[in-house]
Amino acid sequence: MAPNLDSYFSQVDNLSDHFIERLRQAVAIPSVSSEAARRPDVVRMGHFLADELTKLGASVELRELGPQPGTDLTLPPVVLARYGSDESKRTILVYGHYDVQPAEKSDGWETEPFELTVKEDGRMLGRGSTDDKGPVLGWLNAIEAHKVAGIDFPVNLLMCFEGMEEYGSEGLEDLINLEGKKYFADADAVCISDNYWLGTERPCLTYGLRGCNYYSVEVSGPGADLHSGVFGGTAQEPMTDLVRILGSLVDTDGKIQIAGISDQVAPITAEEDGLYDGIAFTMETLHESLGSKTTIFEDKKSTLMARWRYPSLSVHGIEGAFSAPGAKTVIPAKVIGKFSIRTVPNMEVDQTNAVVYKHVEEAFKKLGSKNTMKVYAQHTGKWWVASPNHWNFSAAAKATERVWGVKPDFTREGGSIPVTITFEEATGKNVLLLPMGSSTDGAHSINEKLDKRNYIEGIKLLGAYLHYVAEEAIV
Amino acid sequence: MAPNLDSYFSQVDNLSDHFIERLRQAVAIPSVSSEAARRPDVVRMGHFLADELTKLGASVELRELGPQPGTDLTLPPVVLARYGSDESKRTILVYGHYDVQPAEKSDGWETEPFELTVKEDGRMLGRGSTDDKGPVLGWLNAIEAHKVAGIDFPVNLLMCFEGMEEYGSEGLEDLINLEGKKYFADADAVCISDNYWLGTERPCLTYGLRGCNYYSVEVSGPGADLHSGVFGGTAQEPMTDLVRILGSLVDTDGKIQIAGISDQVAPITAEEDGLYDGIAFTMETLHESLGSKTTIFEDKKSTLMARWRYPSLSVHGIEGAFSAPGAKTVIPAKVIGKFSIRTVPNMEVDQTNAVVYKHVEEAFKKLGSKNTMKVYAQHTGKWWVASPNHWNFSAAAKATERVWGVKPDFTREGGSIPVTITFEEATGKNVLLLPMGSSTDGAHSINEKLDKRNYIEGIKLLGAYLHYVAEEAIV
Ligand SMILES: [Zn+2]
Ligand SMILES: [Zn+2]
Ligand SMILES: [Zn+2]
Ligand SMILES: [Zn+2]
Repeated sequence: MAPNLDSYFSQVDNLSDHFIERLRQAVAIPSVSSEAARRPDVVRMGHFLADELTKLGASVELRELGPQPGTDLTLPPVVLARYGSDESKRTILVYGHYDVQPAEKSDGWETEPFELTVKEDGRMLGRGSTDDKGPVLGWLNAIEAHKVAGIDFPVNLLMCFEGMEEYGSEGLEDLINLEGKKYFADADAVCISDNYWLGTERPCLTYGLRGCNYYSVEVSGPGADLHSGVFGGTAQEPMTDLVRILGSLVDTDGKIQIAGISDQVAPITAEEDGLYDGIAFTMETLHESLGSKTTIFEDKKSTLMARWRYPSLSVHGIEGAFSAPGAKTVIPAKVIGKFSIRTVPNMEVDQTNAVVYKHVEEAFKKLGSKNTMKVYAQHTGKWWVASPNHWNFSAAAKATERVWGVKPDFTREGGSIPVTITFEEATGKNVLLLPMGSSTDGAHSINEKLDKRNYIEGIKLLGAYLHYVAEEAIV
Repeated sequence: MAPNLDSYFSQVDNLSDHFIERLRQAVAIPSVSSEAARRPDVVRMGHFLADELTKLGASVELRELGPQPGTDLTLPPVVLARYGSDESKRTILVYGHYDVQPAEKSDGWETEPFELTVKEDGRMLGRGSTDDKGPVLGWLNAIEAHKVAGIDFPVNLLMCFEGMEEYGSEGLEDLINLEGKKYFADADAVCISDNYWLGTERPCLTYGLRGCNYYSVEVSGPGADLHSGVFGGTAQEPMTDLVRILGSLVDTDGKIQIAGISDQVAPITAEEDGLYDGIAFTMETLHESLGSKTTIFEDKKSTLMARWRYPSLSVHGIEGAFSAPGAKTVIPAKVIGKFSIRTVPNMEVDQTNAVVYKHVEEAFKKLGSKNTMKVYAQHTGKWWVASPNHWNFSAAAKATERVWGVKPDFTREGGSIPVTITFEEATGKNVLLLPMGSSTDGAHSINEKLDKRNYIEGIKLLGAYLHYVAEEAIV
């Protein structure tokens, strides 16, 4: 049993105001990777992290990734850092991202999105609080609490923090592949804290993720936008074609209408079938995260299966059409519908793309339109399933029980973290997803928050995990 | 035959650079009525017009319309002006609008949209050049050319220029109804220059317009936008429902799928049937205005009928969904589809609304969705058909033949100018639509332009029209 945890835990409690202050500083930097105008802020956030790590005694490199393809922007640097290089210790590689989703007060936030606001009930509101600045700072805070308490750090820590996660992780895959056997060479396992508990009470360890293929359907006709009074009734309208194509993809109950998708899904085994009932997840929690009762299924098992082991298709929006409030009588000349499919074992990217393209092309052909249609994948990413019996998971399970007093659920997730597979393939090591936040945090939504409890106990968890890692038998 | 026209015409030619300079000043004011941040520019444009009119000797009122409902904005003033009050002369009431559609260089403009750019080929590019700053300034220029040439102005001119036309003419209807028998009491006829020739060579006079009912379909479910990885497959998605509803409205060939619409359309008479062949309109001109050959019909007659005497339905866009470039894996919580129907005799607004609501409600019901759907009309406007045998039209026809050397086509239009009916009903007088620009001007599109020839000859036309009005026998 790791001996130093009690004094580590009380040091984390002592430093909690300081750790919240560090999160406040990070949230105040609007590091929105998808907005060109915010790029200097993303870079500033990378430098903030590098400076904090240097002060804590880590050796830090700001790794430049060059220009962002298709733009005149420079990619933000990847922060690579090492804390400790004792060959007698295990080495853990951790990953996180310091960029965030866009946010504007006018989107409906109850507070300024880039000012961390700690509410009476413990919610710490702010863009990036839970995704992913809180978890990233968790590692820094764990180092600091060890230093202040004078406890030997139990492992060597390698860190890789990127600034483009919310916009496709441009350039990261090449870097990881390059450094897999170099900078990351002595990593014994990988830990990523960038997902969420299934509910709000029971912690979990995650060993599977769905993939994501993101598609564009472009329909164009006229040379420029037209006035619907003048041209309505005389021109074939790209929007008319596009909404009919988008309407053919999926039904209200989430059933994908594309032939050849369901054939690619792995059949369910008896073992898997028995696995869902024990998971701490209730429809009530789902209703709370949704903010509504508009679920497809009424029961937990169907819902978990739909999220973890079946593909889903979402229509995200349309580029080029009228999207503002009010009324504009425009016939858009070129519209681009965006949808994505969450993929699961045993779907293969190429095979999925093929049936998607075929479906969309046939749906368009059926319309008999003179307009021009193009369908293509903007990006694709494979699903991932790891072995939850590895020591990396055992250590995390023990740490969870020590900090939270309960055994964690072993879960899969509906979302995609493409970097997970990249790390697995580049290092050849086990990858663990160890979430800090809970299901109601609202990453990517308005009023994103991290509960103070999850932040502080989460810092304890990350440190405890490293102590248990140090004690696990090498199998 | 109006005697003073030759010297008037040569004075217009002499002043043409000055008139283009005036248009340049007007285009430089980005009076976009739909954008809150541009409201001060809209107001500035109203004051610019008022100042110019005052300098020309008109008596001018800036009529305030109060707050804009649902916003904290103030409506821009209506410019009411009178030039001349000789009881022995006829009085013509003219209308135009000084606000414009939104425009950004980044939309694809070849020039800065708010800098008038005169090209070698005579195209004068700039937002508002043809819609409707060129025509509005046409009346001011006609006054100035008479003054400079020392020619007695042939009529009393009443002017009504508004600043909210592109955003629903908020507040104007009440003002016109209020002033119908007051400020506008001595108007003998009304002339509006805010539409376009059918092609690029033959001028026209317009005696009919389609109406426009603009609808919103709002589908909402979750309390906030969701991450499609986490919730895809478990929540019923408003976008899924919305695209299916929008896809049910109209087909690629413009055939409206809403039961009960076509029953409301007036049957074609033998007289009307013979009317289309003589109109100066070719499919080639249509292809040029479209910038493509993606027409619904291959022949002129079907095309003109579809534009003038049949309803059409256009899907304009979706508010609340992802509309930017790139890829965002959002499940939008609330989306509002926008579409409009261009209406024709004998469709009645209430009856049309009723069948639209019924269709949308049934289409939504068929989906079996737990989401919430609302359908409503954002605004409605009736079609208009006037008598082209009135002296107002005869005068305009003679003026057209004098300036352009050809008899004008008598046309109807596909677009809506709701104020036309309002003026007709409030004054009880004949309303004439007398266009200045041509079919390729691209009002509401990128690269909006007015040809220098249409501007200068158009100024001659407006003046000549007033001279012929003065000579027409009262019937
Ligand atoms: Zn994240
Ligand atoms: Zn994220
Ligand atoms: Zn106009
Ligand atoms: Zn307009």
